[in-house]
Amino acid sequence: MKKVAILGSTGSIGVTSCDVIRKHRDDFCITLLSTNVNYKLLAEQANEFRPDCLYIGRKEFAEDLKGLLKYGPKIFSGPEGLVESVKNSDAKLLLNALIGAVGLLPTLEAIKLSMDVALANKETLVVGGELVTSMAKKKNVKITPVDSEHNAIFQCLKGNLERPLSRIILTASGGPLLGLPLDQFNDVSPKQALNHPTWGMGKKISIDSATMMNKGLEIIEARWLFDLPAEMIDVVIHPQSIVHGMAEFSDGSIISVLGPTSMSIPIIYSLYYPEHAPSAPVAMLDLAKGLNLEFFAPDEKRFPLLKTAKMAAKELGTVPTVLNASNEVAVQAFLDGKIKFTDIRLVVEGAISSHRSVKADDIKVLLEVDAWARKYAEEFISTRGR
Amino acid sequence: MKKVAILGSTGSIGVTSCDVIRKHRDDFCITLLSTNVNYKLLAEQANEFRPDCLYIGRKEFAEDLKGLLKYGPKIFSGPEGLVESVKNSDAKLLLNALIGAVGLLPTLEAIKLSMDVALANKETLVVGGELVTSMAKKKNVKITPVDSEHNAIFQCLKGNLERPLSRIILTASGGPLLGLPLDQFNDVSPKQALNHPTWGMGKKISIDSATMMNKGLEIIEARWLFDLPAEMIDVVIHPQSIVHGMAEFSDGSIISVLGPTSMSIPIIYSLYYPEHAPSAPVAMLDLAKGLNLEFFAPDEKRFPLLKTAKMAAKELGTVPTVLNASNEVAVQAFLDGKIKFTDIRLVVEGAISSHRSVKADDIKVLLEVDAWARKYAEEFISTRGR
Repeated sequence: MKKVAILGSTGSIGVTSCDVIRKHRDDFCITLLSTNVNYKLLAEQANEFRPDCLYIGRKEFAEDLKGLLKYGPKIFSGPEGLVESVKNSDAKLLLNALIGAVGLLPTLEAIKLSMDVALANKETLVVGGELVTSMAKKKNVKITPVDSEHNAIFQCLKGNLERPLSRIILTASGGPLLGLPLDQFNDVSPKQALNHPTWGMGKKISIDSATMMNKGLEIIEARWLFDLPAEMIDVVIHPQSIVHGMAEFSDGSIISVLGPTSMSIPIIYSLYYPEHAPSAPVAMLDLAKGLNLEFFAPDEKRFPLLKTAKMAAKELGTVPTVLNASNEVAVQAFLDGKIKFTDIRLVVEGAISSHRSVKADDIKVLLEVDAWARKYAEEFISTRGR
Repeated sequence: MKKVAILGSTGSIGVTSCDVIRKHRDDFCITLLSTNVNYKLLAEQANEFRPDCLYIGRKEFAEDLKGLLKYGPKIFSGPEGLVESVKNSDAKLLLNALIGAVGLLPTLEAIKLSMDVALANKETLVVGGELVTSMAKKKNVKITPVDSEHNAIFQCLKGNLERPLSRIILTASGGPLLGLPLDQFNDVSPKQALNHPTWGMGKKISIDSATMMNKGLEIIEARWLFDLPAEMIDVVIHPQSIVHGMAEFSDGSIISVLGPTSMSIPIIYSLYYPEHAPSAPVAMLDLAKGLNLEFFAPDEKRFPLLKTAKMAAKELGTVPTVLNASNEVAVQAFLDGKIKFTDIRLVVEGAISSHRSVKADDIKVLLEVDAWARKYAEEFISTRGR
């Protein structure tokens, strides 16, 4: 039985992970569950899976949480409690499903403890890719990507590590604004941008999908995960989200992974890795029913942030940290009605052009740059707001 | 430098193989080239690649061949000379691109000699699958499929041998008659049936593609190649012939191989296996240009031979031998204008229902059954012709 710690268990990936584990109780045991504010759902999950440790981000909800529990686990809270909860979890695998750069420190802690990591928190690699991958190598820790695109490419490369690779290809649904005329991007509302055509996801990632920044962050994530230069990472629009990722080899063959549009597929793969799941968590793809799969190039005029992120993936240093932090702030401001959809790009580009990149191999530096970029973005937004 | 013997070098696969080797002369050296009747092309190929051995099927062309040669190789001919030529070739790899059941004996000879086999002759496995695969296992000989579908599935399974497999999926273009109304199948002419939409191939395989018997033979081939029961081998129509094969795993992911519609891709893979080709023999697939891939179930009313072949793949014994031999005779009779397109099916089904299947582990039995089925088919056709 594999001991699993789940950070972000009340989010979309976390809930799906619990669903998957519920069906495979003989193979997994949860030792840590966590949330930022949703203590009610956390209490429900805890009462079902009985982990020894719980984490609640906001201290003010700790007592409410305790009131709902039917047993007595260790409870951690506050910013400093997050890493502590991982330390105490005694898990073999950390499933990191946190949202945002806050996911970096617990990933580093897990690696320090020689815990394998199933990574759904892409910011861990966007911000700390250099640090995380070099440390994982030293500690011989396996990082398995939960992101469907990276999980697919991870599968494509398995058994082909000696084969000359020409490039990897991340597929992108194109999001809810794929066909919107260019002159209407200014007036996109949060509701419109949240309306994702194929994937049901959290708010932050849905907006990132509408700007295609999500795919940009994934380029940076892939750069570290697969140790490839940005020039070998391409994006292709595939509106049906059935082909999740591809690897093109120098001999002319492309290996790809197809599957139902369900996060439970990469989740179950990552939970069992390096072993294999005995059965599928959802109905299999039915090709005989009729499928039509389209592929075409993304339009960088509609999605300028994709180009900006590609540039960040080439430059590296602390540029991706600034890209990510300023984007987090800008997306929240857009959701709060403070800025327009097309302003998200201006915030991010403003932050990057005001930043002087340095080496990204020191966690202190990364956290400082992250904080600087957030502050810059907030000021930029409040100035624009006036 | 790998020594390669090529049987059937003047056919479509053989010529493409020579093209591929021409571009990689530092990695390969051809030690045997062969043809049945096309001595002019064989002489050209021989003068270029200078193999020590040549094989010409028809003895009467041996002198003409010698007259065109600029050097003095050993020349083999006649039915008994085929196996002899392989014996003398001193090759590390036999690329068997013969057409029909005649390919079985040289494959068995290569395995006896511990020569690896790149197999483009599917009849080797359709007729002698049990014998060939058990002998290859004993001799630790690698059989790499050249057929694009099987080569793709071979790639899909690599690195996943421990992973529970749910099924493999052979893609089929559907051939030139995919959309033809059912009541017009009676009147299909050889010209119409030879007009394949995506692959340029020889006549026999083009007709097999029009009846979808080709896919049926491929099911039997796959059954032996991947040691899977027929129930785990599915066929899906994919008119664009871009996705060449798929493997669906029990955990819900499907791994597939995509590539340009060119036989040089599986050929170069098989030539270099277990190493890898340094570059692609044709232009890479350009997804960004726009691609539309369709998949749907085959219509067994239009293609009844697909169902018959599936049945043969389940029954095994000598049923596939009869299926193959009677089909070879029927296709030739159709090309010669002796029978109608829809009669091909009647010949094959007649032969199978008149045959009592026995164990298929003895080459003598296989050759006897093969001969019986050909005779049966010829008589059936001549009776019908009256």
